[in-house]
Amino acid sequence: MGPLSIGVDIGGTGTKFGIVDTVGNLLFSSEMSTRNHPDVEGFIDELYERLLPLIEQSGGVGRFKGIGLGAPNGNYYTGTVEYAPNLPWKGILPLAKLVEAKFGLPVVLTNDANAAALGEMMYGVAKGMKDFIMITLGTGVGSGIVANGTLIYGHDGFAGELGHTIIIPDGRIHAGTGKKGSLESYASATGVTLTTIELLEASDKPSLLRDIPKEKLDSKKVYEAAMAGDELAKEIFEYTGKILGMALANFVMFSSPEAIVLFGGLMKAGDLILKPTREHMEENLIQVFQNKVKILVSHLKESDAAILGASALVWEIK
Amino acid sequence: MGPLSIGVDIGGTGTKFGIVDTVGNLLFSSEMSTRNHPDVEGFIDELYERLLPLIEQSGGVGRFKGIGLGAPNGNYYTGTVEYAPNLPWKGILPLAKLVEAKFGLPVVLTNDANAAALGEMMYGVAKGMKDFIMITLGTGVGSGIVANGTLIYGHDGFAGELGHTIIIPDGRIHAGTGKKGSLESYASATGVTLTTIELLEASDKPSLLRDIPKEKLDSKKVYEAAMAGDELAKEIFEYTGKILGMALANFVMFSSPEAIVLFGGLMKAGDLILKPTREHMEENLIQVFQNKVKILVSHLKESDAAILGASALVWEIK
Repeated sequence: MGPLSIGVDIGGTGTKFGIVDTVGNLLFSSEMSTRNHPDVEGFIDELYERLLPLIEQSGGVGRFKGIGLGAPNGNYYTGTVEYAPNLPWKGILPLAKLVEAKFGLPVVLTNDANAAALGEMMYGVAKGMKDFIMITLGTGVGSGIVANGTLIYGHDGFAGELGHTIIIPDGRIHAGTGKKGSLESYASATGVTLTTIELLEASDKPSLLRDIPKEKLDSKKVYEAAMAGDELAKEIFEYTGKILGMALANFVMFSSPEAIVLFGGLMKAGDLILKPTREHMEENLIQVFQNKVKILVSHLKESDAAILGASALVWEIK
Repeated sequence: MGPLSIGVDIGGTGTKFGIVDTVGNLLFSSEMSTRNHPDVEGFIDELYERLLPLIEQSGGVGRFKGIGLGAPNGNYYTGTVEYAPNLPWKGILPLAKLVEAKFGLPVVLTNDANAAALGEMMYGVAKGMKDFIMITLGTGVGSGIVANGTLIYGHDGFAGELGHTIIIPDGRIHAGTGKKGSLESYASATGVTLTTIELLEASDKPSLLRDIPKEKLDSKKVYEAAMAGDELAKEIFEYTGKILGMALANFVMFSSPEAIVLFGGLMKAGDLILKPTREHMEENLIQVFQNKVKILVSHLKESDAAILGASALVWEIK
């Protein structure tokens, strides 16, 4: 029986975790609430209680090499989570150390999107690639950048905040950061809702979306309307894809990846968003980059990429 | 007597070359025209004739480990120069192979800005840094990105074309690429001239620059006017710094560098451009990046960085 590792993907709402073997089989997985734990100790206690029976079933703690954590604003170098706007715990939190003390196992922490990128590189569509960018388009926009076969952490461990790059100068204000015109303000589920409200208000064009109360509008409803042939709903994805495509062109001209892997809720819209994204990416690329870079959609089950990626960090522990 | 290498920095107008020892002493250096050579064979012949006496004075070809070339659109992986808009030679050119055949020495090629970044890392203000971005602000905007202590070449060797990233959507058209709103259209000597013409036409504000015929306006004259207290000239640098600062914020949120090293003609404007650049960079950064990233100005003599960096590539030859 080979060694095992534990992968944990901590999100603002829920946390998913699983037990993984050395070849990436997810032997068990489950989830719990993040949001219900205003203090991190209670969160770690519940995680321990949930995992302990699974650990014992799998041969006990001795069989485990360690725990990999993926969390928003997670810092690989310091093992801390710093000023994460979407988590219930504020300030700078020594998460890796706390989990290590509770479980008695070595812990590695990284940002959730970095974990997902690692998962794609080891077990997903980016298998074998040495240069790619992973972008998660969910409530927010996360990213992980792989160059020369390794994750780019940067000088202080926070590289890869592509969702916060400015793409429309003096554009929409981001409610969390106060910055204007960031990618996340447009190319996320939240951004799509904002675009919907703006476009509905800007014209009298008939649309199925006008029948939905403003506070109930979301990217899923826009998708359903577009699939039913609604022109305004299609325009919303066109606009989102235009901005995303321009941003991707910029990322390509930065690190010249073999592929960009997209992941997350917005990808359910499929070609409605992918087609304009591809077109506008190509339109903004200079010649040496044109028609070279693949845009791929993750095939891993939602959240499995991050659990697998977080668990994969464990094998690197010396 | 230790081994020596040759560094060559090929620019659109001129080419500079030198002989360098293993600790980065530039033993000889000289320059020649690039532009006067419509065909590359003639260019290589002249380079050979110029270097041969220096090689013989230094102990003959046997003492040389190789030649490092820095050139616009130079590809490290293939040794080719591809579609370089500013060079007299068009298409895809096997430059490394041609120089190797002429000199009988191993040749390594990279992009000119990558060479400058290597030079800064080995001998300049980025000495000892593992994560930084080098940006040259001259006629155009070039860049080299170092992460985890190595240059980022990307999947196909063209990473680091930051001058072509879009910073003002639907902005100025770039005469060379046809793309709209790229950084190079604003934050280069050419961009400053365009901004000057735009701002002069947009108002009746008095300015020393109004006395200069339009075709004679350049960034040096704008600098002189600003130093003489001209308000419009100062506005031009403010505007340029605003756009550059926004772009730098995006680059920081991509790769989280320890520093950004600026280099090239525009840097002669000093604080006139550096102050607004710093301010607008900080303004656009999210909290985890604020007040951390140094903006440094290269201290190496103009072009020495690229010669030193190109020559440094030679020591990596196996």
